[in-house]
Amino acid sequence: MPPKTSQSPLEELISSFNELNGGEVEETYEEPSPLEFMRYVSRNTPFVVRGAASTWKATQLWDSAYLKTVLQQNVNVAVTPHGNADAPTFSPAHNATVISKPHEEEQPFDEFLDYVIKQETDKTFSSEAEVRYAQTQNDNLRNEYLALFSDAPKDIPFARIALQKPPEAINMWIGNSHSQTNLHRDPFENIYVQVRGRKHFVLLPALCHACVNEKLVLPATYRRSDQGLTLELDEGEDDVPLAIWDPDDPDKNTTKYSHLAKPLLVTLNPGDMLYLPAMWYDMEFSGPFYPLTTFVRNIGLNSETTV
Amino acid sequence: MPPKTSQSPLEELISSFNELNGGEVEETYEEPSPLEFMRYVSRNTPFVVRGAASTWKATQLWDSAYLKTVLQQNVNVAVTPHGNADAPTFSPAHNATVISKPHEEEQPFDEFLDYVIKQETDKTFSSEAEVRYAQTQNDNLRNEYLALFSDAPKDIPFARIALQKPPEAINMWIGNSHSQTNLHRDPFENIYVQVRGRKHFVLLPALCHACVNEKLVLPATYRRSDQGLTLELDEGEDDVPLAIWDPDDPDKNTTKYSHLAKPLLVTLNPGDMLYLPAMWYDMEFSGPFYPLTTFVRNIGLNSETTV
Repeated sequence: MPPKTSQSPLEELISSFNELNGGEVEETYEEPSPLEFMRYVSRNTPFVVRGAASTWKATQLWDSAYLKTVLQQNVNVAVTPHGNADAPTFSPAHNATVISKPHEEEQPFDEFLDYVIKQETDKTFSSEAEVRYAQTQNDNLRNEYLALFSDAPKDIPFARIALQKPPEAINMWIGNSHSQTNLHRDPFENIYVQVRGRKHFVLLPALCHACVNEKLVLPATYRRSDQGLTLELDEGEDDVPLAIWDPDDPDKNTTKYSHLAKPLLVTLNPGDMLYLPAMWYDMEFSGPFYPLTTFVRNIGLNSETTV
Repeated sequence: MPPKTSQSPLEELISSFNELNGGEVEETYEEPSPLEFMRYVSRNTPFVVRGAASTWKATQLWDSAYLKTVLQQNVNVAVTPHGNADAPTFSPAHNATVISKPHEEEQPFDEFLDYVIKQETDKTFSSEAEVRYAQTQNDNLRNEYLALFSDAPKDIPFARIALQKPPEAINMWIGNSHSQTNLHRDPFENIYVQVRGRKHFVLLPALCHACVNEKLVLPATYRRSDQGLTLELDEGEDDVPLAIWDPDDPDKNTTKYSHLAKPLLVTLNPGDMLYLPAMWYDMEFSGPFYPLTTFVRNIGLNSETTV
């Protein structure tokens, strides 16, 4: 019998996981075979393939000029005051922490891209300016951005073969270092590919659920008004669960388990690929020195039936 | 948002699992490829391959005469009064429920086998007679029963390739319909092959942990004495966790979750193969009409590092 400790079973589980799994995301330089990939899926373990997409047309062609030529159209843009889309935000008007959904609007693509780049590179740009992020998740590379779809493979073969289904959604996201994605989790297997710029990920395994302080909060949405962006509560919507603990500000909004979380940090450079298993938590933000950050995300097997 | 229910999160989890996974073990007639097998491992889902071992030498050759010819030696036999090895047993002498470990002794193989067959087939055999079961789990087909090892494949190729390791243990078990295996779980991937006779399995997924009423009980071991088999407490041993709920007697020793368990039932016939994922619960007993029940068990990937 192991020695008795004063830890609760959940504390022991999280501590054992940390001990057994080390503090780093596995890295490789070759895409896995379907069988090798399935071993990662089976172990619910993320991995990075450095340079996996370095020969993609997207990685080689996509720059500001190319994108503006191909996308002479409007695109859906998420607008927030501080890059805090879908984040826990204190709303003074409601005296409550809400989940702040972005204001969404159509913008001509070239104007949107100029704004994103200028905010990053122009030192005279107001630090109070709103943050714009093209972040729809409705399979946008096969819809809104269809003109770019032929620059990327139709799917990720090792994942399609292993999971026996094509991607459910392929999304491209464009933002700058002000764009953040709050700690959250998805019930899908995810494959991220970095096309331009870099992105920092903070990852937590599903068993850290007790660390992230999930609370039911009111949903609210930013609206443009004469006063700028103001939060309005979503009428008739139920509270939604939201992780309010922030691994980057770990002493606030804690649970008694938060201190046990050992977030895995990984940075993707152009051409890198990350497998993020279903139900892992992830938080993302862009590096400050890269003006354009783009993703392709393949959402594969819906894992709701796994245990 | 889903409608609010009065179920606790754990009750909802078990109910959803039952709804999503149906009440039957998946069946096939062909061994899976390594990739197909890995999908089952990934989903933590058992399956049966009917007739997978029907061409094995073991399945074709092993009968009483053959086994006695090959095994002219002593074997380790587990002896209990009622087939209750490693089961929750009330000990009047200690006024407590203990886990009853069998008395172990060496017996000439031919005498052991005659006893097992006679107890099953001879109607004059005392119903009070002790139960004998060759059930060591120390890789016995590569040790005690090495003379039989060449009658079975060295490993299960689809599992060796998928899990990237050879079997940690290959065990053969011989018993009769009085031999039971109490509800328990192992931290290994298991592949069972039925060689002779039939075996009934009662299976529960790992998430039914709250249903099985695991209690810490004192370990005790049967000893032969003038009064027959008597239970003696193991000196200096800590309490061990034991499932005391019995899916075959489901109204006794319940937890508030036991009624939610929907055990999967599966019967193996000669030549059938069962994959039982790590951490599933299983309970086994032999059919009453078959005198000789034999298993080969391959223990593969130790899953302690999975979540």
